[in-house]
Amino acid sequence: MSARRAAWAYLSQVAQGPCAPLVELVEAVGPEEAARAVRGAALPEALSTRTQARRHIDSADRDLDMIGRLGGRLLTPDDEDWPAWRLLAFDGLDSRRERESAPPLALWVLGERPLTELTERAVAVVGTRAASGYGEHVTGQFVDDLAGRGWTVVSGGAYGIDGAAHRAALAAGGATVAVLACGVDRAYPAGHARLLREIAGEGAVVSEYAPGTTPARHRFLARNRLVAALADAVLVVEAGARSGARNTATWASRLGRPVLAVPGPVTSASSVGCHRMIREGEALLASRSADVVEVAGPVGVGGEDGGPVRPLDGLSAKAALVYEALPASGSVGLPELAESSGVPVESVRGALPVLELAGLVGSDGTGWFRRG
Amino acid sequence: MSARRAAWAYLSQVAQGPCAPLVELVEAVGPEEAARAVRGAALPEALSTRTQARRHIDSADRDLDMIGRLGGRLLTPDDEDWPAWRLLAFDGLDSRRERESAPPLALWVLGERPLTELTERAVAVVGTRAASGYGEHVTGQFVDDLAGRGWTVVSGGAYGIDGAAHRAALAAGGATVAVLACGVDRAYPAGHARLLREIAGEGAVVSEYAPGTTPARHRFLARNRLVAALADAVLVVEAGARSGARNTATWASRLGRPVLAVPGPVTSASSVGCHRMIREGEALLASRSADVVEVAGPVGVGGEDGGPVRPLDGLSAKAALVYEALPASGSVGLPELAESSGVPVESVRGALPVLELAGLVGSDGTGWFRRG
Repeated sequence: MSARRAAWAYLSQVAQGPCAPLVELVEAVGPEEAARAVRGAALPEALSTRTQARRHIDSADRDLDMIGRLGGRLLTPDDEDWPAWRLLAFDGLDSRRERESAPPLALWVLGERPLTELTERAVAVVGTRAASGYGEHVTGQFVDDLAGRGWTVVSGGAYGIDGAAHRAALAAGGATVAVLACGVDRAYPAGHARLLREIAGEGAVVSEYAPGTTPARHRFLARNRLVAALADAVLVVEAGARSGARNTATWASRLGRPVLAVPGPVTSASSVGCHRMIREGEALLASRSADVVEVAGPVGVGGEDGGPVRPLDGLSAKAALVYEALPASGSVGLPELAESSGVPVESVRGALPVLELAGLVGSDGTGWFRRG
Repeated sequence: MSARRAAWAYLSQVAQGPCAPLVELVEAVGPEEAARAVRGAALPEALSTRTQARRHIDSADRDLDMIGRLGGRLLTPDDEDWPAWRLLAFDGLDSRRERESAPPLALWVLGERPLTELTERAVAVVGTRAASGYGEHVTGQFVDDLAGRGWTVVSGGAYGIDGAAHRAALAAGGATVAVLACGVDRAYPAGHARLLREIAGEGAVVSEYAPGTTPARHRFLARNRLVAALADAVLVVEAGARSGARNTATWASRLGRPVLAVPGPVTSASSVGCHRMIREGEALLASRSADVVEVAGPVGVGGEDGGPVRPLDGLSAKAALVYEALPASGSVGLPELAESSGVPVESVRGALPVLELAGLVGSDGTGWFRRG
């Protein structure tokens, strides 16, 4: 186990959820230096306050051992399958105003397939725990179709619509990802212990919370942002008047992901939230899977029978803007690229490695150029 | 029976549905002169063509006798309860392009209450003949609420949602108006003979077709425009993929009436049309009667508990524009009023008598002035 890996694990355990200043510190000095600074409380005040209560907890070895024994791993920005381009969507948010507006520091993952691959084409299917028979049935129909078309189904692993979505994806032989609001060593809810094992077997069970973390209300809200971030669109199948699904939908909108909601009988309390979202323009009405594919699919993939896949498919809007701003020939520097793309320079800096990894850009001594 | 009344009856029987040039001719020379011209074929070609086949049918006496024996009457622009302000909405449409874009020449009515009073606050509730149990149930809920709040329910008298809407209005002790695509002497559909009698008893059964006219496909489409015109909003409860309710909704949009649709299970064929209208922005989603009242009610009447009624409530948009364009003191002529209101001079000419009737304007030797 490398010292760097242990530093990531330590920081994840201390941060316990979204913590923008810590993400920034790690970006600036690397995880080991950041871990040293947190341990020694040699920190700016904002970060000191956020880490003070937990910086003494050094369970990195135990946590990494635990995730290893579960057959899982700690996924960090060091890793090739870190879903960097999915998390670029957080760049536009102001994490000083709201804690959850930060990308995760690292992710604890059960499941062998690379997360980037799993979430390459993904739809979040979420909804109330108090699902009706109608809601479970309709979830099955949508997911069966979507899984059959190769879409991964992301959800929260909860009872009700979430569980129905995961189960239908597994039944269709599709991939599915559960994002938890507790450590992945915890089976929550307990009744889904076996389902979560099956999800890990065919897809992934993911959490930004270190092993041992118990579920808590604010963690569900933070978790919802990752459900939205890891998908191309969010489909709410059923939501009551106060369903958490609406929170996931709000995150989706903030992260630039389309939101859809399935209507149901107006006599059903489980559809009240969906109807409200549709009426108020927060969600598009989805009555069949093609409606989802139409807005979730990259340009040219919508409709019934798919279409040619373009090189920019799957890129975040910002990365696509950066790519489009590159001249047809010659190379340009970072400041020019920020100016011509209209994307902030820090985001351009974040997008370029992603584009490079995708084989779309290259760099030389003077700047960045377009490939192919 | 006056000669003028007989002329109206004759013209209605000859026109057999929307006929803009005949409406214009009557406006210009009056019904008796128009009837003489039609009989003698002393007409411009457009009108000659439209009346040639039927100008020999002079059943006016018999038709007026028939409507009298049924306890009904022929309602014309001569009458005080002619719903002039409802029909002003046709002013903006181009009746040369499309026959149905004309107001009715006259209306045959069963029922004693003045039509203007009946349609003062009215919602059209329409939908598929192939209604589901859900659709009939939901129709009952909406209509019970709307009738309880004093809204008249306008519909087409058909099986399915229409019938459920009329029945629920009657059951709630509310007023209801059925607009037929055949003569009001015909009970169509036959199974609704008794229902139509009850509607006439508490509200009105209305048609622009003279007694004896049989239903035909194009008459249903023409009828739909009157359903929309006589209401403040159109609510589609259930509509299949090819439901005629969508045609009523299209008329509503063209006439400036808001359209709402009730969602239902996505597994139900009877809700496909509603979902499509909502998804494509042709209809607002309605899950309860308050949603309807919110958009149908005049300014200040929306919401749960109503509010003060303003003098302009119930006026067409054009009439309101004309009224607003009148100076606070002094009078102005027709051309100035057209210019300052932005409303075409012919429409201003149509709106002024309505405003006068409502006690909102008066005229003197030099022009029109604002009252109160």
